[in-house]
Amino acid sequence: MTVERSTPRTPAENAQLALLLEVTGTPKPGNVDRERDLDELRFEHFLAGAVGANRGLRRAASGAPVGVAFERAIEGMSHQSGGNTQFGCLLLLVPLVRAAAAGTLSPDGVTEVVESTTVADAADFYRAFEHVAVAVADPPEDLADLDVRRGSDAIPALRDRETTLYDVMAASEGDGNAEEWTGGFSRTFDAAETILADDGPVPDRVARAFVDLLAEGEDTLVRTNHGPEVAAEVRRRADAARGDPEKVAELAAAFVDEGINPGTTADIVCAATFVALERGVSV
Amino acid sequence: MTVERSTPRTPAENAQLALLLEVTGTPKPGNVDRERDLDELRFEHFLAGAVGANRGLRRAASGAPVGVAFERAIEGMSHQSGGNTQFGCLLLLVPLVRAAAAGTLSPDGVTEVVESTTVADAADFYRAFEHVAVAVADPPEDLADLDVRRGSDAIPALRDRETTLYDVMAASEGDGNAEEWTGGFSRTFDAAETILADDGPVPDRVARAFVDLLAEGEDTLVRTNHGPEVAAEVRRRADAARGDPEKVAELAAAFVDEGINPGTTADIVCAATFVALERGVSV
Repeated sequence: MTVERSTPRTPAENAQLALLLEVTGTPKPGNVDRERDLDELRFEHFLAGAVGANRGLRRAASGAPVGVAFERAIEGMSHQSGGNTQFGCLLLLVPLVRAAAAGTLSPDGVTEVVESTTVADAADFYRAFEHVAVAVADPPEDLADLDVRRGSDAIPALRDRETTLYDVMAASEGDGNAEEWTGGFSRTFDAAETILADDGPVPDRVARAFVDLLAEGEDTLVRTNHGPEVAAEVRRRADAARGDPEKVAELAAAFVDEGINPGTTADIVCAATFVALERGVSV
Repeated sequence: MTVERSTPRTPAENAQLALLLEVTGTPKPGNVDRERDLDELRFEHFLAGAVGANRGLRRAASGAPVGVAFERAIEGMSHQSGGNTQFGCLLLLVPLVRAAAAGTLSPDGVTEVVESTTVADAADFYRAFEHVAVAVADPPEDLADLDVRRGSDAIPALRDRETTLYDVMAASEGDGNAEEWTGGFSRTFDAAETILADDGPVPDRVARAFVDLLAEGEDTLVRTNHGPEVAAEVRRRADAARGDPEKVAELAAAFVDEGINPGTTADIVCAATFVALERGVSV
């Protein structure tokens, strides 16, 4: 089934715009946004990252393998001094762009893309970790040889085990982005509908959708960096603040003070923004 | 003579990043920046404009005629609801990107590019005015048939007179961007050196360079919209505020209240940011 597109931009352009709108939407408590930098990670690092990522996104749109397109996007993203800006966003965007370019941007369509990934895609995914330092959880003990932080050193193990990129995601239990990959991008498509149904400037819609997502599910990056109790508490605090701009602004200040960075939720809202742009939300 | 490049990005990527850094640098009194929107022209319109302009910038880098690349950039830029975001920036960036891609990014190199423009380039320049409304001064009476606001209706007159795009610029007396075209982009290259010699985050350098440029020369767009006396007064006020962040912040608030938008100065600082990126300023 082909999905109707109603946007003046190509899928790669909408993906780049989604990267830029994600970092612009404010307040997104705990994240860099139009009004807030973190210590070593500033707004302009995201701009340069989004510019550099474009080459990989265009590869995805022209049908390159998911792994190749992702690794190129991360390589391009890495040419700035802030470190990792939008690795997780790109992990979600690349298969979505491929599906959009093929006219199949739907839960089924993107699932077909991710289920078709190969061992070569997994190898390129691991290579991407050599371009930037990414915060990830420790893998289960029996998968220690597949720790993504090993970068391309892990590739022989991937080949031995015949592990595809989809398999890598399926083994990443409890990771919010991996759950999108293996669960039909359900939170992404739901949040896209929220953004489409909302009104006002798109960055404001993105910021509201971010708080909704954070209120509805624990953030993986917070859990990785601070443990499950803090992640549960962050979710509760977002739930208590949602819908009240003053409380959300307080949360934004508090999370930065506490060093809490709900980055996985930002990844999902970025992917949702892409879907909303493809479905015609107007900037 | 080939000019050394020391940047991880392609010329088209650096041009897109320059568009984004220009709109981000704050405070840039009277302009949209990271901290300020105008009534109907918001930050996200510039993001979408910079995304869309990329297709034209890549054409410029691959050696397309200046007119074709410019018209494509403006067409891409126009797919957002804010109207004209960075028309003037692109008018400066397109020949600079062409020169950079050819390894000749210098006053002489870019002058060679602009002096080589043809009647066809002029026709494409006029076509670009059909994509967005641009504030321009009235032409001299004997050039009324070449009023850019006529769009492609003026093309027969261009052909009759054998007017190249360089000729159009040479006839645009008192226009700051046209003066860059016909004067070796001198303010652009000077401001690029200022940005390179400055320190701190690049958007802050861009904002400081903007105030310096505004203090040193009257802004064409202000003159077009408010007359020569206001333009002179704006220059004096910028000169009095430069170097004092508190006074520059006051100016930023005042100019927005007074409806003063020094857009041509923003164009030149954008072009200067591109040159600085090409020469290795690090984000």
